[in-house]
This record gives sequence, C-alpha cells and structure tokens, in this order.
Amino acid sequence: MISKVKNAMSTLVGGMMPHGHHHHPGAGQHCPGDSLPPRFPYGRPDFLELTPELLQYSTEHASRPVLTLKRGTRLPWRTGYAEVINAGKSMLNEDQASCEKLFVKKPSGKHRNSTLLEDNGDGTGIPMHFWGVFDGHAGSGAAIMASKLLHRLIRDRLGEICHLLENPNSAPPICLAKNGNAYQVDSKKGAPQEPEDPDAVCDSTLRFHMEKTVSLESLIMGVIETAFKQMDDLIEKEKASYAISGGCCALAAIHLMGKLYVANAGDSRAIIIRNNEVIPMTNEFTPESERQRLQYLGFLRPELLGNEFTHIEFPRRIQHNEVGKKMLYRDHTMTGWAYKTIIEDDLKFPLIYGEGKKARVMATIGVTRGLGDHDLKVYNSNIYIKPFLSCVPEVMVYNLDENKHGSNDVLVMGTDGLWDVTTDREVADAVSAYLSCCDPSDPMRYSLAAQDVLMRSRGVLKERGWRLPNERLGSGDDITVFVVPLAGGELET
Amino acid sequence: MISKVKNAMSTLVGGMMPHGHHHHPGAGQHCPGDSLPPRFPYGRPDFLELTPELLQYSTEHASRPVLTLKRGTRLPWRTGYAEVINAGKSMLNEDQASCEKLFVKKPSGKHRNSTLLEDNGDGTGIPMHFWGVFDGHAGSGAAIMASKLLHRLIRDRLGEICHLLENPNSAPPICLAKNGNAYQVDSKKGAPQEPEDPDAVCDSTLRFHMEKTVSLESLIMGVIETAFKQMDDLIEKEKASYAISGGCCALAAIHLMGKLYVANAGDSRAIIIRNNEVIPMTNEFTPESERQRLQYLGFLRPELLGNEFTHIEFPRRIQHNEVGKKMLYRDHTMTGWAYKTIIEDDLKFPLIYGEGKKARVMATIGVTRGLGDHDLKVYNSNIYIKPFLSCVPEVMVYNLDENKHGSNDVLVMGTDGLWDVTTDREVADAVSAYLSCCDPSDPMRYSLAAQDVLMRSRGVLKERGWRLPNERLGSGDDITVFVVPLAGGELET
Repeated sequence: MISKVKNAMSTLVGGMMPHGHHHHPGAGQHCPGDSLPPRFPYGRPDFLELTPELLQYSTEHASRPVLTLKRGTRLPWRTGYAEVINAGKSMLNEDQASCEKLFVKKPSGKHRNSTLLEDNGDGTGIPMHFWGVFDGHAGSGAAIMASKLLHRLIRDRLGEICHLLENPNSAPPICLAKNGNAYQVDSKKGAPQEPEDPDAVCDSTLRFHMEKTVSLESLIMGVIETAFKQMDDLIEKEKASYAISGGCCALAAIHLMGKLYVANAGDSRAIIIRNNEVIPMTNEFTPESERQRLQYLGFLRPELLGNEFTHIEFPRRIQHNEVGKKMLYRDHTMTGWAYKTIIEDDLKFPLIYGEGKKARVMATIGVTRGLGDHDLKVYNSNIYIKPFLSCVPEVMVYNLDENKHGSNDVLVMGTDGLWDVTTDREVADAVSAYLSCCDPSDPMRYSLAAQDVLMRSRGVLKERGWRLPNERLGSGDDITVFVVPLAGGELET
Repeated sequence: MISKVKNAMSTLVGGMMPHGHHHHPGAGQHCPGDSLPPRFPYGRPDFLELTPELLQYSTEHASRPVLTLKRGTRLPWRTGYAEVINAGKSMLNEDQASCEKLFVKKPSGKHRNSTLLEDNGDGTGIPMHFWGVFDGHAGSGAAIMASKLLHRLIRDRLGEICHLLENPNSAPPICLAKNGNAYQVDSKKGAPQEPEDPDAVCDSTLRFHMEKTVSLESLIMGVIETAFKQMDDLIEKEKASYAISGGCCALAAIHLMGKLYVANAGDSRAIIIRNNEVIPMTNEFTPESERQRLQYLGFLRPELLGNEFTHIEFPRRIQHNEVGKKMLYRDHTMTGWAYKTIIEDDLKFPLIYGEGKKARVMATIGVTRGLGDHDLKVYNSNIYIKPFLSCVPEVMVYNLDENKHGSNDVLVMGTDGLWDVTTDREVADAVSAYLSCCDPSDPMRYSLAAQDVLMRSRGVLKERGWRLPNERLGSGDDITVFVVPLAGGELET
C-alpha cells in the first residue's frame, strides 16, 4: 500500500535483521514498542527461499526485481506467485504472503495451547488450503505477524467444529453442550429447567415455532470472520511484549470441502477468471466505500472525533468567512448532496476527505478495514483512528465442486498495487492470453503468469519513472500476486 | 402492509368520517392524539372520484372490489392505477397513493409559506411528475398525510435550487451566497478572511487542490432524501395539533428533466419492464436486510434497548437452563454464524427476531424505513422504536431520455401486497402479456394492466380463503399498483 498512512510512513519500517532496532518513529505515531524485539523478523515469504544476498537484492528500488518461485519449488495447489518492492516509498516491501496446506482436526489436550506453532500436525484431518496477501502500512510488523498466524487461527477455530464438518449433510446444531455435542431439549418431558423460569412454556412453544436453520457454509464464514477478529486481538495483546509496527489489509482465500471462501478486509482484490469471464470475489473497503458507516459512528459517538473532526462531508474545506453561507454537504444517511447553512462547527476537518486513492479517514489513513493499527493516531493529536477501522472481512463463497474448470481458469489475488493501474478485465485478458500460450505441463506456468501480469502493473524504468507500454505511470507500490489454478486441487499430487 | 406491527394493528384505524373519533388505541400503543382531529380525513385518492357510497363499498372485505380509474378520468403521464383492500386485518385500506403533475419554480415572497397548499400554481416553471405509494401500518394517518404533502415538499425544495436546474449543463456551485448565487473566492486577491485565521493560506491551497464535483443528479437525489426527512419531521410536529396515526412505507417516483428518480423507504417495490426485461428500481428495507445497521445502533447505544433486548442475534430464543452452553450467534459485524458461550445477558429478547415476512424489530415492526411511527413503543414498555427506523429513502436513477421505449415498456410500483405472492418475473410477464393484447389506443390500457396484475396477487375467494389459480394463498394485504408507461411523457397531451 503506497502512502496510505500520512506522515507515519516512509521512515517507520521494521529492522531488516532479527531483533533489529532500526525503528524511526514517524511523526505523530506513538510507538510504545520501540524498545521491544519484533514479533517476527523481517523477511520475505519462506517459500521464496531467499538467501540473505537475495533478500538484500529484493529491496533494490532502482531495479525492482520481480521475485517468484525457484524452479523446482512447488507451492500447494500448483499455486503461482510473484512479488515486487515499491519504487522507494519504504525501505522494505510491506506486502507479505502465505500459501499453506493444513489439516483441520479436533484439538487434543496436548495441542490445545500450542497449535499456533504448528502448520501441518501429523498430516491427518480435513485438508484445508490457505492463500493470504497482507498489504502493510506504517511498518511491516502487523503484515508479517498475520502472514505467519492467520491461517493457523482459522485452522484451529475450524478444529473446534471439526465434528460438525465431518457431517456436512446435517445442519449445525443451534446449541452445543459443553462436550461439544448438540444440546437437545425434549419438549414433552421438559428439559431440566430452573423452577423459577416463568417463560418456560412460552419459550418452549416459541422455540418450536421459530428456529432458524444455519448452514454449514454460514458457520464456516463465521469461523473466518471471528478468526480475523482474533488475529487483530492477538496483535494488540502481543504489542505488550513485542514491537509490531503498523497495520495491514488482509485478503485470504480458504479452500475447504469443495468450496472456496474469499475473505477481504482492506483494498486488496481477488477475481476468478473462468472461460475468460471475470467473477469479482471481493469488494474494497475504503473511506469512500465505507463513508456512511464511518459517518454514522462519528454521529453516534462524537467524542471519538476529539472536537477536531466533523462527521459531515463537504466537497472541500470551508473557510472561516463562509460561515452563514450555504454549502453542499452530505451526512451518514445521504447518497446525494444538499445545501446547508454553514455554522462554526462545520469548520472542523471532515472525517472523510479526498477522492479516490487520496481519500482519507481523519486525514490519515486510506483504508478502513484490516489488522493492527492499534496505536495509530491523528498527527499531532491524541485521537485514535482504530475505532473507525474494522478488522472483519467480507466473505464470498465460490462453489468449486459445482463448476468445471479448465487449466486456464484461475483465482487471481493481488494487493492494490496490481489493480491501481490495471483493470480486472485487463488482468483477466493478460492472464488468459499468457496461460493459453504456455506449456500446460510446465509446473512454473502459474508463477510465470503471475510475473507477467505483475510486470504489466510495474512497468519499466524510463527517465520519467516507471512507465507502462502506453506511457502512463506504472504502480510505484509494493505488488504481490497469487495466480491459483481452480483445477489445482485435482492436479495436485 | 399486513400485520407489520404486532398488537397495535387491527383495531387502530382512523375514523372513516372527517373528525371521526373512532380510535381504539392498540395495546401498548400510546396515543397522545386521541382527542385531536385527524390531519386529513380518511379517504381514497382523489383521482378515483369515489362517492360516499363507493367509498363504503371499497371497504368490503368479503368481496374485495378492485378499484381503478373511471373511464374518462385520465391521470398525468397516462398512468394506470388499481387498488384493493385487505382481507380483514383492518377496517380501512391503509395504503394510499398520489399521482401529480407539478411545476418547479423559484419561491416568491407570496408563496414562500403557503405552497404546501398548492399543487399546480399558475402552470409555469419546470414540469415535474410524481407518483407515490404509501403503505400504512397501525393506522392510516401518516400514509394519508404523506400522500397529500410529500410531492409538494419535494417540489418546494426543488424550487429553492430552481436557478441551478435551469442550467443543467453546469455543475452546481459548492457554495452559495445568501442571494442564492454561487459564492466565488478570488484566490489571488484573497477572499475577505478573518485576520486570525491561521489556516488561510493552507486552506486556500487545499481548496484549489481538492474540490469534489457534485452532479446536478446528486443534488436532486439529495433534495429527495432531505424532503423525506422533512416530511417525517412535519408528521412529528403536527402530531401536537392533530391525530396522525401510525406510520407508512413510502415509495415515490419523480420525473424531472428527462430522468426518473425512484425513492424507496420501506418494503414496497418498483421495477422497470423494458422489452420484457426486468430492471429492479428498489431494494426493500426490512429487519433482515437492515440487520447490521440496527445491531450496530443497539451496540453503540445500548440504552435504546431499554435493558429488554440484546443486539446479538440468535437462531432462536434461549432458555434459562442453557446459560453456560454454546449457541450460534451473530453480531453487527458478521454475516456468518459462530458459537458463543451463553451468558445471562443473552437471555434478553433479540433486537432482530424472526425470518422473512415474520422478521421483527423489537418483536414489533416488520419494516425498518418509512415515515411516522414517532409514538410507536414496544408492547407494555417505555421503549421507543423510532430511533431504529430510518425515514431516508434509497434513490435510484433511470435515464429516461437516453433510452427508447415502446408502449409496453412500463414502471410498475406496488405495495408489498402485490409482490408477496407474485415475483418480479411473473409481474413482468403478466403486464407484458396483457399490454400486448390490448388496444394501443385505449386510454384505459395501463389501468387495466394494473387491475389484471393486482388480481393475480389477490386471487379469488374460495371456501378456504383468497386463492390463486395454483391454489396457493393469495395476498390478504391491501394492494396498490401503478403502471406507468415509460413513453407516457411523449404520449401525454
């Protein structure tokens, strides 16, 4: 993510070396973890198998080398991958990625508290595939931590409902006893009810009249949603002991039992390309797309605005001498604009300000969902921004088993650096064209396609910066791309 | 709307006669206006030209006569109309409708405070067409008042920006001086700024860097949104002097300068049928579709739940003896479901409860947007429901002038009684089939089509109630339908 957080950006990067102490707190960014060791050292995804020399090479802003898998390395599900560092906005690549095959199983006594350390266990259980891209801002700490742990949190939470996953054809029970089994109330004999319960009969009647059926799919969506929250809480908790800088957008795809769950919190994007047709699998969460939610919070909890901001949106800053005149505005209930008479209070800075990539919450941050950012404050103030940010993803489901897929049908996941300069359609055309010219048996084909589409967004370095073939500016941001073949599960050996 | 408000429904209807005092306050419904005269007497839309005998006839629940225009009566824009009363849930038809041609013009001194009384003025100004359907609940007062005044409020608010409408090709100015002209700041000379303004230079720079362009269309949308709010405020204000019972869903279509603006607050529905293709022009606002907004409010302002309700949703009521067990739930951030350990607080009644047409907010109301309902409380409590209801419509725009329309292309607007038993596709097929068999020059053709499609939802009375041809239950609700020919503006003489 480029320049998504004002003032606190280019200098605030985690140390390259383990336990590095090269933190330069950005202006206005309170860094209680300054003297603490990082939770995980900076690095690139393990599957890239970078030597220290290559790791150093990967940070060269002048050449921006595109990194991909070594020939011979295989990712689960035949996944293709490519990444490139930004054009200089931060010393290090603040994007991170993970691609894992895991196994969901019932937590055993032994594992209950230590599974976060494990990826594969003993290889038994329900197989689950995970792909994650994490686009950091104001430091790489949160993105690195999420790339190491989010998939395990999801796996562990799925483990808790493992016995329900094993019966995919029966709806999950509404109530579970402490042993995890369905809690059944026998309405005729009467359940063991507290004698003072005056609603017992009424409840019992109601219960049999009105009981929602919840699908297993909704339960898995709920697991993913709550795991994101748990990840965010864990970052907050561990900040007491470790330096975990910044925040990150999180985009995750989970394959479980024939379905693909795509969960997005931030402005990364995923699309499915099937028969050269584009199926969007995410919506982006930005100050513009979430304007009404943010304004509503500012309206209901004005104390969060710290007397510095107004929840009302104006098309530009108001000048003191305009008080009493009429200006266009919109509040949290409106989509259109109307005129209002300007009062003193309207001179405060708008909670949402700017357009497109320049839109900001509280003049600070350009994304409204993600993980971390617990310490993020408005420049030169004591106003926290975290209450306005959501860590909960939107989850979309694609039924993989119900569709036929050729070897050129893929899921493309990318950080905003990819999509800022290339449309969905252009990405789909590029990937489809590349794959159809590519040897179907080449194990590198999806990585090569990822590399190809990434280069289209990066461009080439000319005198006037990174340029696309059409001379428009290329993306100066970190870029991370997964190309996941939809038939990859069948192809996997 | 049928049984949309529990307990406070079937008995609480406005008196048939002007100044009737036949109010039977429903259980739990506080009626401060009981001894006051109604704001408008009960009746059917003026354009039906009902005699007192016909008005009485229109309320016969046993026969449910379908009312339509008298032959010879013409509505603006060749509009077709039909309505029918419910099967007995309330004495009177709680639906209302209006169809008007108005003229937008600058408010003059003489009219400034009295235009609400006028429909057409002197026939000069920018022509505007209005269609409204209002589906009342817990009384007919709010629906009647809205059907008499909403179009005038919109017309008057448009009048205030009349000088901007007259220049449709220039974007509305961001700031208006008191005389209504654009307020221009000359950046070089410097605007007359207060000397103590430390941000003057900065503001000035920012302003020229960042100024959103607002389209005339967004301004008209904003006018409609704020006019709904004004209508709601007016109902509240006039309740001090008049009996204005209940609340209503409001669906309005406005034609202005070549575009159709469809504004919906509630569960009525509008579709465009073009070449037998369906274009939905509304979303419905119900406890299910607005669950997250309502839960968020309950979460942020728990005092509004009066210690009786919980903002968390459960798939059924919880029993006392289930405390400590785990139950499926979802909160305001979630779409999926997860398990939580039940605590005492979860025994409170869920803010949102029930499914489909039976879903309710606070066990009381089945729609979440509309006008009125200022006094509506939870049965046997002092908890007001109004804070959870929104009076702001969603506005969708259809560019009429940019499309070609045949004489069978129409906008269908109907209260939920129409759509509950007939799908969009079925309505479209029925209307298209009817119109294509109908004499194109018959001035009654759109009313006959409205009547035909209405009868498909009402059904016929058999031993086992109102039945559709396929033996399923017909709608027992009030039903109101407009069929508006999209080419009606050209056909109008």
